[in-house]
Amino acid sequence: MTSYFSHIAPIRYQGPATDEALAFRHYDKDRVVLGKTMAEHLRFAVCYWHSFCWNGLDPFGGGTFERPWFQGGSPMELARQKADTAFEFFEKLGAPYYCFHDRDVAPEGATPKESHENLLRLVDVLGEHQQRTGMKLLWGTANLFSHRRFMAGAATNPDPELFGLAALQVRDAMDATMRLGGENYVLWGGREGYETLLNTDMGRELDQMGRFLNMVVEYKHRKGFKGTILLEPKPREPSKHQYDFDSATVYGFLTRYGLEKEVKVNIEANHATLSGHSFEHEIATAAALGILGSIDMNRGDPQLGWDTDQFPNNVPELALAIYHILQAGGLGSGGFNFDAKVRRQSIDAEDLFHGHIGGMDVCARALLVAEQMIVDGRLAAHVSQRYAGWDTPAAREILDGRVSLDQLADRVLARNTDVAPRSGRQEYLENLVNRFAG
Amino acid sequence: MTSYFSHIAPIRYQGPATDEALAFRHYDKDRVVLGKTMAEHLRFAVCYWHSFCWNGLDPFGGGTFERPWFQGGSPMELARQKADTAFEFFEKLGAPYYCFHDRDVAPEGATPKESHENLLRLVDVLGEHQQRTGMKLLWGTANLFSHRRFMAGAATNPDPELFGLAALQVRDAMDATMRLGGENYVLWGGREGYETLLNTDMGRELDQMGRFLNMVVEYKHRKGFKGTILLEPKPREPSKHQYDFDSATVYGFLTRYGLEKEVKVNIEANHATLSGHSFEHEIATAAALGILGSIDMNRGDPQLGWDTDQFPNNVPELALAIYHILQAGGLGSGGFNFDAKVRRQSIDAEDLFHGHIGGMDVCARALLVAEQMIVDGRLAAHVSQRYAGWDTPAAREILDGRVSLDQLADRVLARNTDVAPRSGRQEYLENLVNRFAG
Amino acid sequence: MTSYFSHIAPIRYQGPATDEALAFRHYDKDRVVLGKTMAEHLRFAVCYWHSFCWNGLDPFGGGTFERPWFQGGSPMELARQKADTAFEFFEKLGAPYYCFHDRDVAPEGATPKESHENLLRLVDVLGEHQQRTGMKLLWGTANLFSHRRFMAGAATNPDPELFGLAALQVRDAMDATMRLGGENYVLWGGREGYETLLNTDMGRELDQMGRFLNMVVEYKHRKGFKGTILLEPKPREPSKHQYDFDSATVYGFLTRYGLEKEVKVNIEANHATLSGHSFEHEIATAAALGILGSIDMNRGDPQLGWDTDQFPNNVPELALAIYHILQAGGLGSGGFNFDAKVRRQSIDAEDLFHGHIGGMDVCARALLVAEQMIVDGRLAAHVSQRYAGWDTPAAREILDGRVSLDQLADRVLARNTDVAPRSGRQEYLENLVNRFAG
Amino acid sequence: MTSYFSHIAPIRYQGPATDEALAFRHYDKDRVVLGKTMAEHLRFAVCYWHSFCWNGLDPFGGGTFERPWFQGGSPMELARQKADTAFEFFEKLGAPYYCFHDRDVAPEGATPKESHENLLRLVDVLGEHQQRTGMKLLWGTANLFSHRRFMAGAATNPDPELFGLAALQVRDAMDATMRLGGENYVLWGGREGYETLLNTDMGRELDQMGRFLNMVVEYKHRKGFKGTILLEPKPREPSKHQYDFDSATVYGFLTRYGLEKEVKVNIEANHATLSGHSFEHEIATAAALGILGSIDMNRGDPQLGWDTDQFPNNVPELALAIYHILQAGGLGSGGFNFDAKVRRQSIDAEDLFHGHIGGMDVCARALLVAEQMIVDGRLAAHVSQRYAGWDTPAAREILDGRVSLDQLADRVLARNTDVAPRSGRQEYLENLVNRFAG
Ligand SMILES: [Co+2]
Ligand SMILES: [Co+2]
Ligand SMILES: [Co+2]
Ligand SMILES: [Co+2]
Ligand SMILES: [Co+2]
Ligand SMILES: [Co+2]
Ligand SMILES: [Co+2]
Ligand SMILES: [Co+2]
Repeated sequence: MTSYFSHIAPIRYQGPATDEALAFRHYDKDRVVLGKTMAEHLRFAVCYWHSFCWNGLDPFGGGTFERPWFQGGSPMELARQKADTAFEFFEKLGAPYYCFHDRDVAPEGATPKESHENLLRLVDVLGEHQQRTGMKLLWGTANLFSHRRFMAGAATNPDPELFGLAALQVRDAMDATMRLGGENYVLWGGREGYETLLNTDMGRELDQMGRFLNMVVEYKHRKGFKGTILLEPKPREPSKHQYDFDSATVYGFLTRYGLEKEVKVNIEANHATLSGHSFEHEIATAAALGILGSIDMNRGDPQLGWDTDQFPNNVPELALAIYHILQAGGLGSGGFNFDAKVRRQSIDAEDLFHGHIGGMDVCARALLVAEQMIVDGRLAAHVSQRYAGWDTPAAREILDGRVSLDQLADRVLARNTDVAPRSGRQEYLENLVNRFAG
Repeated sequence: MTSYFSHIAPIRYQGPATDEALAFRHYDKDRVVLGKTMAEHLRFAVCYWHSFCWNGLDPFGGGTFERPWFQGGSPMELARQKADTAFEFFEKLGAPYYCFHDRDVAPEGATPKESHENLLRLVDVLGEHQQRTGMKLLWGTANLFSHRRFMAGAATNPDPELFGLAALQVRDAMDATMRLGGENYVLWGGREGYETLLNTDMGRELDQMGRFLNMVVEYKHRKGFKGTILLEPKPREPSKHQYDFDSATVYGFLTRYGLEKEVKVNIEANHATLSGHSFEHEIATAAALGILGSIDMNRGDPQLGWDTDQFPNNVPELALAIYHILQAGGLGSGGFNFDAKVRRQSIDAEDLFHGHIGGMDVCARALLVAEQMIVDGRLAAHVSQRYAGWDTPAAREILDGRVSLDQLADRVLARNTDVAPRSGRQEYLENLVNRFAG
Repeated sequence: MTSYFSHIAPIRYQGPATDEALAFRHYDKDRVVLGKTMAEHLRFAVCYWHSFCWNGLDPFGGGTFERPWFQGGSPMELARQKADTAFEFFEKLGAPYYCFHDRDVAPEGATPKESHENLLRLVDVLGEHQQRTGMKLLWGTANLFSHRRFMAGAATNPDPELFGLAALQVRDAMDATMRLGGENYVLWGGREGYETLLNTDMGRELDQMGRFLNMVVEYKHRKGFKGTILLEPKPREPSKHQYDFDSATVYGFLTRYGLEKEVKVNIEANHATLSGHSFEHEIATAAALGILGSIDMNRGDPQLGWDTDQFPNNVPELALAIYHILQAGGLGSGGFNFDAKVRRQSIDAEDLFHGHIGGMDVCARALLVAEQMIVDGRLAAHVSQRYAGWDTPAAREILDGRVSLDQLADRVLARNTDVAPRSGRQEYLENLVNRFAG
Repeated sequence: MTSYFSHIAPIRYQGPATDEALAFRHYDKDRVVLGKTMAEHLRFAVCYWHSFCWNGLDPFGGGTFERPWFQGGSPMELARQKADTAFEFFEKLGAPYYCFHDRDVAPEGATPKESHENLLRLVDVLGEHQQRTGMKLLWGTANLFSHRRFMAGAATNPDPELFGLAALQVRDAMDATMRLGGENYVLWGGREGYETLLNTDMGRELDQMGRFLNMVVEYKHRKGFKGTILLEPKPREPSKHQYDFDSATVYGFLTRYGLEKEVKVNIEANHATLSGHSFEHEIATAAALGILGSIDMNRGDPQLGWDTDQFPNNVPELALAIYHILQAGGLGSGGFNFDAKVRRQSIDAEDLFHGHIGGMDVCARALLVAEQMIVDGRLAAHVSQRYAGWDTPAAREILDGRVSLDQLADRVLARNTDVAPRSGRQEYLENLVNRFAG
């Protein structure tokens, strides 16, 4: 019996010179970079939803993809067929991880209980596939945004009944994640925000969300789950405003509800740019605040104001992002997830491979560039020399809180000399990066 | 001797029907609204810098304003002439407050000491003018962004010498503020951010900024200053990224450095929109987080990506902002500052009056609209009814932390019923607002 | 038998003071404004698609509206039921016009012929409803963007077969429009643009689009259709780039293909702001270029980068737009269409009324403001006085081409005097607008 | 006597492996690429204004650069010193061209005549420098935006006297350009637009601008100037709206005033992105419309909403831009101008070299990538195959206007078959680009 991908051979590393489109040119999983293999650094994950659930629909048009598992059977049969095909794809691609929402893998049932049971059954199917293939689960999550019942939020819903239904889904999705050996658990609050302040009590909603997240963390500890709980920031879309706007906002939220040591962020490149930041800004911010967890590698389009979730394709840009991740000590239990979809016009089976191969190769190439930046050492040295004045005893005294504003002001007044500024050397540093990335 | 504004008579309230352009049509300072006079609600302040220091320069062109105090004397003489003219304007306009940066009122000297002394001398001049006119100081601040020495930051500068020079300026500006009876002290970090991550250590810079702000708060308490310390968020410009991006970001920063009870925000409408939020979003967020302090009423242009600092001119928009301020209990020691400049082509003395009169009238009119929204009560009632479910004992139990995720999930599973969503009624609510604002 | 809207009484004008939400407060259709009734000025149209076809779906969630005509019958039966309900809504609302796409009113068939025949049959149904109710058709159009076959464009498709299928749909939609007495015919090219330049030949695609539009114009003339052919500009979405980016771009396209006297633009407020312009900019531009045709009154959200298609709700903003329309002599055969959808959470039948009532009232109120601006006359007088110098013979000589660059330069050099600039008076003019709008 | 750049040796090509920062790694001017040398392809120009006139000022701070020619002499002496230093820089850098505004090279005088004479004198100085060094002038232009007299426009000013003063400046700048062998003449209309529609008559202003440009073209022909007249599009800044918004808008303007065969565009990367387009979009659009003239290679910052004029630093992005230029047959008399400024903190003499070296190297590297894309040929072949259907006789018949809408519709109806869409292969094509650029 032919499968959806039977005409495509497993993807292999063939080196930069290969003329084969369905091969890796840079991602050589066992190649050692700064003491770890590429596979260990990058921990690539394929997402279930964009590649196996989305049908190509956009706000102005219907589906364009005609996958065999979209129709022709009962929902549960189609879910099994989808799982079979997804794992065929995972295996052929050679990314070690995948990610899913509960509703991606198992259909919504007619009642909460039926949904609950559908998930249990599909988790068995996924578990068998993992067993058979060696695929691992980077993280699981619950879809609390697609069903109409969540149109006004899940944890932040004005109706506590919805909070309850969300709690059920999250508990079940955490259980599923644990059963499948998931290494993290993610929450993305697509509807946790508002459409209009006219019907919204922001203070109440933040408190609801803070309580919900604390319940999640308590459950994690009670069950002995060792993975990381991750929030995925996004400024807006589908909501007009989402409470998890960006990493700095999430940090403030976590401190407000006592969770800054418990929860980290899953940073998506596309969400970073939608929030008015660069991807590397979000990474560097999360690292500085101690909440860098994992990343979604999909980019946006600089001319479009919505989430296009495209595969990354610009090596110099990614090299900076990966450089900051490496400088922060890596992602720990996190990984590089492709929360990316092929374009609506990329309707063929092979297009799913082109998207992922390109994305993985770009990351691998960017990792090699970042390696060179680190081995070279000039960038990091430039930064530490720039701040060297702060390492003197007089400066440490200030930072340590042993000098008052008044004392410092009086000292400066007594000395009575101005300070000549030094060049920021931005162009030199950009050229230095291009020495490796250009 | 004729002064710059001698051809303009004091501005009076003449009511909506007046045909006089140089009169208030809505701002009737003693009119009582919800138990306080308009003047008490709005506490209008004129800013010194845009109206009396800026010469009309933009990045592509030189000055267009030819004010008499821009040339023809020594810097100190011109500063005195500027102060005389500014107070003539304040008096004629009839706004009760003004605001200044140290360098607006007194010229930079050749040495730190000379700058320090220049300021002391001009503070005497300002004090005399306040005495004479009854004008009050809403807040003072230090300009730590215009001089080239601060090009790489003040508190966040890689060089601790700059931190010291900033400390001197801030101490002196706080002293000046206190001497002049200022009701708040503001810090805006135009250069507290970065141009490129390539030369930046964000963690160090945040710690420096946290220490600096703690020194300010300690000094305030030591001196017994009763005013509020305010940070003014702005996402970018002049820096590529500013650490005080928006209210939620500032909240996280304050909690990180133990200052969330000590410091509030001064929210500027133009900065709100540059950060991807509405003005009322920033107000509602700061209110929900307990850090709403004061506001800068100047708007941006929806088509322009930079800080245009224009006088407000849209009543329905402002009515929503003021509604949220009133719902939050008002601004306390804060006020409505016009951090606004007349357009570069508005080169005449009278244009300064048109700008401020229009801005004050729009705020007064918006206050009357907000009053109606509150007196009517339907908006607030709609919101509290929408969340009424959370006031039941069962829901309070959840919010109070007495139900675990697991318990709640099991309850929901046992009940096994779905929940029908209710209409968000956005269009109805917008129509309700327009009943008062339209 | 109860209908979807049977619980809602016809909407009547009840004046500003009414407490009834389901009534007009400003739209008094027979009220005379500047010599014409409100109904004649505004020529309101309801769009079929957003209110009767869209199910509340967004890119992150499924439908939220559960309309009776969405399921439970054959496609043709449901289409008839939809038409019955739509006309019930039109009648109760009291807007005189509606607009539709071919696929809104009649379902796509299994073959081109079946689609063609479905449309013919539904046009009969619509015709009967028009007869019965007096409703009129402002414009018809063809949906060349939702079906997957058009994913790479209709007229601009790389495959000429798609051009043919588009031609069939447009011919049929034009025929339908003519049969129903439509007063204009609109083309919106949601897929006439590109996703990536890598697979696009822009020169070819523009030529295809130019030819297609010429065929439409030729057909119009052959059939003796007296209505206006309208293009609706939009910068992007669903395409990454759409060729009809804005009014100025469309003007260039029309001149390139010899159509600037034949085709006008239908300007949507939301598309204007997405293209980086204000709504009134697009109106004033189209008026200056002689291609102002009709308008879609739906606004976007200033914080969102996509087409939210919301009902207008800001009177001062709309007053400026309507002022420019009136100054340009009105819209001729065009009208005010609401290409607007109620929010995804506004799931009740009555929400459709709230949206349209609010939109119509805001337009009516803005028309009254614009009337005052015109009657007052100061705004227009200010502008014509500002340019009065160009009405002198010396200036006319320049504009008429009777002075060369060299001659003019030599004259200026000989005179050798500089020119003092005059104030632009922007704040004064904004205050003058607020005299009527604030 | 030491000069400003005397400590810097001439910049040489040293190959990719060099460790020298002040050397080219990719720009090897005599290297042949697709039949022409790199120097012939790229025709690099340095701009006078950003590197030699700008003092580091931004809207929130004063100058940071302390160049010797900024003070200490009479304006004319300083202008000569500036010219000496600029040519020292040009020579050491090794870019073959430069560009200037009239006011960059010669100071504004007290009267029009004095300004005219100042320019004449400095043109002599520049001519001597060109003679001595072999430097060439890519284009000249007139600064009609910095002086306050032009605050409301030059050609579009409401006052015809300003039109006259602008004519004098442009005539003189054209004369200067011709005398110095300039290969093009550029007009950028920074103030040709509006701040508020309230005081603007757009129709009049467009006609004024059309007349002005026709006068320029007539003068060019009368003087026998063989260079190209270029408009530089920009959407906004300093004006709220500029009439030369983007290439498509300029095309419409040119056709309106009969100039589409006479005038081309100078496309700046930073202006492209500010107008909501990619740089390659603007290039491909201008090429498709037959008005591609020259380019300014400076980029913006994706997070900033204003013109940052930064040196390019992303090779894959530029490779696409250069690919489209090469596909369009190159730039003719145009070139690659760096309308770029080093960052405000890059205050040292050497920073000017880092900026330009980096920019030139990135362009050279991108040219090599584009060469590979062209030699490989798969990209172009993919595009032409995608449109191959349009080369059939049946399709040509349609394009040539020999088939009516009706005829085509009837044929399609008779055939009665649907068309299966084909994959757009975007990911495959992006991967193909990265084969060369990644
Ligand atoms: Co995303
Ligand atoms: Co994501
Ligand atoms: Co501002
Ligand atoms: Co401010
Ligand atoms: Co729209
Ligand atoms: Co529309
Ligand atoms: Co620029
Ligand atoms: Co330029």
